[in-house]
Amino acid sequence: MAKTAARQPVPARRADAERNIAAILEAGTRLLGADPAASVADVAKAAGVGRVTLYGHFPSREALVDAVLDHAVGLADAALQDESLDTAPAREAMAGLLRTSWEVLDRHRRLFVAADRVLATERIREHHDRPLRRVRRLIERGQREGAFRTDLPLPWLVTTFFSIIHSAAQEREAGRLAATDVERVLVETMLSLLSRAETTAPS
Amino acid sequence: MAKTAARQPVPARRADAERNIAAILEAGTRLLGADPAASVADVAKAAGVGRVTLYGHFPSREALVDAVLDHAVGLADAALQDESLDTAPAREAMAGLLRTSWEVLDRHRRLFVAADRVLATERIREHHDRPLRRVRRLIERGQREGAFRTDLPLPWLVTTFFSIIHSAAQEREAGRLAATDVERVLVETMLSLLSRAETTAPS
Repeated sequence: MAKTAARQPVPARRADAERNIAAILEAGTRLLGADPAASVADVAKAAGVGRVTLYGHFPSREALVDAVLDHAVGLADAALQDESLDTAPAREAMAGLLRTSWEVLDRHRRLFVAADRVLATERIREHHDRPLRRVRRLIERGQREGAFRTDLPLPWLVTTFFSIIHSAAQEREAGRLAATDVERVLVETMLSLLSRAETTAPS
Repeated sequence: MAKTAARQPVPARRADAERNIAAILEAGTRLLGADPAASVADVAKAAGVGRVTLYGHFPSREALVDAVLDHAVGLADAALQDESLDTAPAREAMAGLLRTSWEVLDRHRRLFVAADRVLATERIREHHDRPLRRVRRLIERGQREGAFRTDLPLPWLVTTFFSIIHSAAQEREAGRLAATDVERVLVETMLSLLSRAETTAPS
């Protein structure tokens, strides 16, 4: 590293590094999305960089998967930008948010499976902080408008959104849920859960 | 190993191995339940066996965690044996099953966190096959008796039980859910989800 530094001016090195990182994240998203078992060597090859270069930026497969997940969630969050989230009736907006979220997650389903194999659930959830803020904002609005229940803690309702949609990804991957049934199942489940139960729990 | 075999008759060796495995699983359940980062060396020491012996039975930390989880779920399943599951009104039986399941999971919460760090969610779910069969039987009965919805696939309803109760463990560990609130939140969530929604999803 010290020798290279002496030969190449700093800005050019930084630009190279940024280009390499972008290529690695793009290739990682693509390859892990196709095969959750894709290796670091496969990703380096597809990105057109050497393994040493890749390990220079991402010191382990876990670190690579972590960075690729973060990259993919950033793309997903962009897809969730939709002003109807703030204007449509809350239940309709929730159904729309579930459908769009599922569409994006389903596209990256295998990448999520790859992440689930090497990262703790809490870490995966941290990466979803931005999209989950949208979920939280919508649930809060629905509560203010009387469409959603207020007897359960708000963070818990946000968690159930995360948990249910990721369960659907697991169920799809395991072949226990039909592709054609996912959207209906997600919308029915989440809206039932957000509605005040008619009968309270037996004591 | 071959040398030991020549010195010791086979049944004695097998009894030794069984005793060691039992001690390792007991120590693993205890230590990982207290600290999800407990090491293989810690477990070997607490079990009174050498690391070589431990690795002879469980070739990696992942294999050890996997076996300890299976052991703990076996204990948990025994705790869930309760004939009121088949006799009490379905909603009451579900509330009882959630409370008992949470009690057991909460006791082993850190072990579950340890498992979540190294095992895929699908693998963790496989270990819960026996307790989830109880959940399934109860939901089926509730459906027959008209207490639970039938418009969502049965395997999905079973999955939501697994998913929600494990989310609660994550939320407790992350400090986002109060200990005193867990049972109410779980019962309300699961019963809402099992009830037919009054209004169907917006199209």
